[in-house]
Amino acid sequence: MSAFGFEVLRTMPGGARLGRLTTPHGVVETPAFMPVATYGTVKGIAPDQLRRIGATIVLSNAYHLAQRPGAETVQALGGLHALMGWDGPILTDSGGFQVMSLASFVALDDDGVSYRSHIDGSAGRLRPEDAIAVQEALGVDIAMSLDECVPAGASIERTRAAVVRTTAWAARGLEARRRSDMALFGIVQGGFDEPLRAESVEGLTSIGFDGYAVGGLSVGEPREQTARIAAATVRLLPADRPRYLMGVGTPGDLLRFAAMGYDLFDCVLPTRNGRNGTLFTREGKLMIRNARHERDPRPIEDDCPCETCTRFSRGALRHFVQAGEMLGAQLATVHNLHFYLRLMREMRGALAAGTFPGQAAAVAGAWALDT
Amino acid sequence: MSAFGFEVLRTMPGGARLGRLTTPHGVVETPAFMPVATYGTVKGIAPDQLRRIGATIVLSNAYHLAQRPGAETVQALGGLHALMGWDGPILTDSGGFQVMSLASFVALDDDGVSYRSHIDGSAGRLRPEDAIAVQEALGVDIAMSLDECVPAGASIERTRAAVVRTTAWAARGLEARRRSDMALFGIVQGGFDEPLRAESVEGLTSIGFDGYAVGGLSVGEPREQTARIAAATVRLLPADRPRYLMGVGTPGDLLRFAAMGYDLFDCVLPTRNGRNGTLFTREGKLMIRNARHERDPRPIEDDCPCETCTRFSRGALRHFVQAGEMLGAQLATVHNLHFYLRLMREMRGALAAGTFPGQAAAVAGAWALDT
Repeated sequence: MSAFGFEVLRTMPGGARLGRLTTPHGVVETPAFMPVATYGTVKGIAPDQLRRIGATIVLSNAYHLAQRPGAETVQALGGLHALMGWDGPILTDSGGFQVMSLASFVALDDDGVSYRSHIDGSAGRLRPEDAIAVQEALGVDIAMSLDECVPAGASIERTRAAVVRTTAWAARGLEARRRSDMALFGIVQGGFDEPLRAESVEGLTSIGFDGYAVGGLSVGEPREQTARIAAATVRLLPADRPRYLMGVGTPGDLLRFAAMGYDLFDCVLPTRNGRNGTLFTREGKLMIRNARHERDPRPIEDDCPCETCTRFSRGALRHFVQAGEMLGAQLATVHNLHFYLRLMREMRGALAAGTFPGQAAAVAGAWALDT
Repeated sequence: MSAFGFEVLRTMPGGARLGRLTTPHGVVETPAFMPVATYGTVKGIAPDQLRRIGATIVLSNAYHLAQRPGAETVQALGGLHALMGWDGPILTDSGGFQVMSLASFVALDDDGVSYRSHIDGSAGRLRPEDAIAVQEALGVDIAMSLDECVPAGASIERTRAAVVRTTAWAARGLEARRRSDMALFGIVQGGFDEPLRAESVEGLTSIGFDGYAVGGLSVGEPREQTARIAAATVRLLPADRPRYLMGVGTPGDLLRFAAMGYDLFDCVLPTRNGRNGTLFTREGKLMIRNARHERDPRPIEDDCPCETCTRFSRGALRHFVQAGEMLGAQLATVHNLHFYLRLMREMRGALAAGTFPGQAAAVAGAWALDT
């Protein structure tokens, strides 16, 4: 894997680490947050703005893109980077979670998943080899293996069967990989059972992947449970490979899980909240639709250097959101993503200075644990 | 009016002219197209992008802003320029047309208009003095007088009464103006009757305004009728004042009416069409939703230097539009507005070179007259 590399620059006693991920489309300093571009665009922000606010890698979704516009179409248009107008690193989820949560008539067997598209109802079949082929066609930097996600509350037996299947699918995907310039991560499953998580890690690490993702968390369980499983799992993962905690989370989560030693994160919160008019600030969430902001000429955050805070008042933003104008969603998204990316930069700075997580958590203050 | 000035730099035999409009927020080379920012934002494009594509002045709407967020709110937020994040010139329509076309229970008398808001149903009263006060509170560069717009097909008697009322209202508005840094235009009405148009011009010019708008055209009438009235009216307007043809139009219209000697234009076509996936090109309109664009890696226009054409393929744009992603509307809007503003720049270049409208019309080719 000459095009792909991961280097741990510093590890703190609690497990937190500063790292550097090298991909064919550039370097990602970790811990890093990946804005979510499900269909090839981060909703509410253009690629050049993403760069300006400090995004270094984005997440997209192979299942969604395979449905629309189709992997062959993306290929004909020059690949996913060209489609998106984004020349930085891209990581794609394989779509296992999406096919099982969005499609209808989902039927799993050991060979793969049969489903009907959530877009047009057409019948589809997704095998682990297909998931790899699609991601190779898209031309992404980091691909995910196809995994089986069990619903919250699944029995131990069902969860164990999913772990076994996920490991077998990961092995088949790795075997099927043709592009040496695409990294492939295995996904740890195992629900909320520590021994099953250990079994999943053992199975995947004995095969050996470029990195490891932890899936099946943040699916509605109590946050203590998330933290317990995330902590138990991260200790088992090889130190020299990147660790991606899927679908996490709030600003407080990012601090908490980076402190455990996770390197990569993704979440729709900053973008989705932005579109709803909920803004992240160091003092907590700010609901811009609230009437008290109507005539407030201050920016969302006084010290924020983002394009929204330097140019628009709370009152202006509220007006655009209330009037249903696109600009409202755009301005809120830019601020929220900037907030997330700034938080990651500050964490990396504190890691480099050896003051993370202690100082960072103190500086971050109350909001970090509340949101 | 020290802050406001208009200079005609060159006039062609057919009446077309190159001009320079000076406002407190900057200079506008004319003929100019004003992107429409009804609620204080040009839908689909941010203020910094507007600047980059060459917009020098935008149009907003005093009636809409008075409804939402309210003139006092805009004032509390530092005025319309601050609200919008736009430090260039702003022209507002007074809202006469909007109140009469959008509000309910509209009742006109010689003193003003009573209506119920189209937003919240609240009762409102708009007198010519109020229209000026609102625009002064917004802090715009160029205000429009309150006018009475008659529906298409109104009788000569009703149309004549509206001309008389519009002139009286314009005089009252001028009398009520307090800000010497805000230019005020009168609006020529008179339907499709040349003598009534002449009467309207005579009434307004005998009072004397900073500029003259021609209203009541492009409201659904045959285009020959628009052209006939526009041509008959423009000849009567004073040469030393800017002339604004309201709500016009297609690229072909811009060429046609600039050739007659109109200086300012506004239209929602480039932005609204953009959001619908209809793109302006030199070869005519391009419907990006059409399946033939699905795998087309070419830009919308090969020679177009806009941020959309230099970075995104037709196929990518189609995908974003089809998927309902905001980016699709944004990219299409940027291209369409860039197309309009480039057309205006080319016209001004040809005017400076003394080759307009002859050469420009020839260069523009078939699309100019078709669209």
